[in-house]
Amino acid sequence: MTQLEKARKGIITREMKTVAKKESLSADSLRKKISKGRAVIPANPLHKKLSPIGIGEGLRVKVNANIGSSPCESNLKTELRKLKVALNAGTDTVMDLSIGGNIDSIRKKVISNCSVPIGTVPVYQPFIEKKFFNVQEKDFLQSIERHAKDGVDFVTIHSGVRKKIIPLLKKRKTGVVSRGGSLLIKWMNHFQQENPLYEAFDEVLEIAKKYDLTLSLGDGLRPGSIFDSTDKAQISELKELGKLTQRAWKKDVQVMIEGPGHIPLHEIKRNIELEKKYCNNAPFYVLGPLVTDIAPGYDHITAAIGGALAAFHGADFLCYVTPAEHLSLPSIEDVKEGVIAGRIAAHAADIAKGLKGAKEWDEKMSFHRKKLNWNKMFSLAIDKEKAIAYRKKSKVSNDFCSMCGEYCALKGI
Amino acid sequence: MTQLEKARKGIITREMKTVAKKESLSADSLRKKISKGRAVIPANPLHKKLSPIGIGEGLRVKVNANIGSSPCESNLKTELRKLKVALNAGTDTVMDLSIGGNIDSIRKKVISNCSVPIGTVPVYQPFIEKKFFNVQEKDFLQSIERHAKDGVDFVTIHSGVRKKIIPLLKKRKTGVVSRGGSLLIKWMNHFQQENPLYEAFDEVLEIAKKYDLTLSLGDGLRPGSIFDSTDKAQISELKELGKLTQRAWKKDVQVMIEGPGHIPLHEIKRNIELEKKYCNNAPFYVLGPLVTDIAPGYDHITAAIGGALAAFHGADFLCYVTPAEHLSLPSIEDVKEGVIAGRIAAHAADIAKGLKGAKEWDEKMSFHRKKLNWNKMFSLAIDKEKAIAYRKKSKVSNDFCSMCGEYCALKGI
Repeated sequence: MTQLEKARKGIITREMKTVAKKESLSADSLRKKISKGRAVIPANPLHKKLSPIGIGEGLRVKVNANIGSSPCESNLKTELRKLKVALNAGTDTVMDLSIGGNIDSIRKKVISNCSVPIGTVPVYQPFIEKKFFNVQEKDFLQSIERHAKDGVDFVTIHSGVRKKIIPLLKKRKTGVVSRGGSLLIKWMNHFQQENPLYEAFDEVLEIAKKYDLTLSLGDGLRPGSIFDSTDKAQISELKELGKLTQRAWKKDVQVMIEGPGHIPLHEIKRNIELEKKYCNNAPFYVLGPLVTDIAPGYDHITAAIGGALAAFHGADFLCYVTPAEHLSLPSIEDVKEGVIAGRIAAHAADIAKGLKGAKEWDEKMSFHRKKLNWNKMFSLAIDKEKAIAYRKKSKVSNDFCSMCGEYCALKGI
Repeated sequence: MTQLEKARKGIITREMKTVAKKESLSADSLRKKISKGRAVIPANPLHKKLSPIGIGEGLRVKVNANIGSSPCESNLKTELRKLKVALNAGTDTVMDLSIGGNIDSIRKKVISNCSVPIGTVPVYQPFIEKKFFNVQEKDFLQSIERHAKDGVDFVTIHSGVRKKIIPLLKKRKTGVVSRGGSLLIKWMNHFQQENPLYEAFDEVLEIAKKYDLTLSLGDGLRPGSIFDSTDKAQISELKELGKLTQRAWKKDVQVMIEGPGHIPLHEIKRNIELEKKYCNNAPFYVLGPLVTDIAPGYDHITAAIGGALAAFHGADFLCYVTPAEHLSLPSIEDVKEGVIAGRIAAHAADIAKGLKGAKEWDEKMSFHRKKLNWNKMFSLAIDKEKAIAYRKKSKVSNDFCSMCGEYCALKGI
């Protein structure tokens, strides 16, 4: 039985208890959220090392870090180092998006070394392992099950990229920017067929139910520039995802909805409202959103701005964006920067929404900041290492810092 | 005559023409904004190298970079390098907050090397150059005039820190975090006197009028943690600043209002509304705001989140915050990171507010991104240098990047 099925039957699982404790909620109130599809616990029983977390309404906003090889750079050791750095930086989940080297081996190693939920995008693998023209519907299903058997907790499934929506893309500035979405559309165009993940959605649900694989319904048509934001293609796909959500819920399968992408500040609130409306309050998992297109090298910042605002308005889960976005595969250092930026955005939203326990962290920090207690400040800093490094730059032995020296305002009046 | 006086008399100055051109506005509509105090042109005629800019309603959101020595680190060459880096990174104004070394000499050199408006905080200097107990009211006025004579375009004046407000600070978590505010309060407490910059405000206005020195009415009581945000002390000072604005306008002196500081996301909009209400729509110049206290080392990001939202809701001018905030005097690299983060926030708000010409930048970037035209992308990037460095990391000779390699979605379907 999936967490959703059990929740509906009134059963409080071990995972619900763990998550409820982490969130300072009663297990039964969490169970209710799960039973309504408003929260998910992505927890594949085959992921042995997992310490479960919850994603959704009333829970702490979560952050995902994407790692994974590419055709240009594939090194198991590097990916495991990225995993470690992401976990140390406090990511809530990790997605292994590997598309280079030995994909199966990387995934298995990542899962066995990872205590947080692991997500993947199984649609990539058939396209990489087979000649394009030989890829068939069953290959996608086999890939999903292969990932599930390894212990993956959630998978991105782009079933909403319907054939009828594709003509709407012609009006776009940046077309399709989702890797999975573009591969699927290429396949659909070539075979003149409907999306195989839509056609086989019932089979996808069977696999998902069997392994309690949480479906992260992917936004293959997410906007790749602020000009394509909230356009007809995006919203048409979102409506499809809403219908698929209903189908999944009927089969007791847990669902999250993936969202954009590039959205200007003034459209963010509306985007959250539309997702909550069309997808019946299923948890919303946004990639960014990036509030401007002009800052390659700083897209962890454009995404932190958008992510904070999105989460404040109700997005539940933020996919990190690293400074390498639009430019290269992220390095280990980029992974860390991305996770921290994402966590800042998530935490800022938790504070603003009045989430229990959120501002207590700031309270402790500010208490010790006022006292100029540096060691306490470091231990409370979101990135202790970096705070210490900056403090060292100060080259002062006193309790103040090199900004104001003896004129430090915090020293009191 | 000040820009404000001329604007009121219907005179369109050379500075107004220049600014109107930069903002794609008619000179007369700009003149009207200035005449109502809703926009300022900080342009001291003694700042010979100045290319004027406007700050206020309907204008592009501006970014300020603070540079300056401290008692722990004072080096003229370093400050001039910071100035250069800030200008190269596209800052709209620079404040020289020097409190170490030869303050006069640093200021004069900075002004003579700077084409953007220069701001200072003249109240620091008497406290540094004289024994605390010997500092008198006239020292502050002399310091203001000294700065004005050097060609400073705007000065922070903390005249709103009234004696009657000080008891309200007792309830605070982090007391006073403004350097100028804390020095003044120390002086006021010691001499048991009203704020000398309040007492001598008419004299301040005389100097300001003589040199067309724009007053940036300082928020000496800005909150230093999200717990002190929008508290009675802050708002009481803001109301005082509103009254002082009226007095300044009567004397044809241009005014901006400085604002917080640390504010949680959900209080930002209200803070802007209060400033516009109490200060009759005088331009609002915010420091941050920082949306959480727990991210030392990343406060350029906490401030970019708050700054973007503040500017979206009507803040006109963002003071940058660097990654060194709360930890040390910013380095040259920190100055650059701070300016870029501030500019991203400002630009995101310009887009969201539909400012003419704002999204055209993104449009060009996205056009060339879709075409995978890297050289054009670099030339459009907010930080060309960093974008190129990341691209080099990609180690690929093809048109795609190392993120997706041959599976690049942008290559089209």
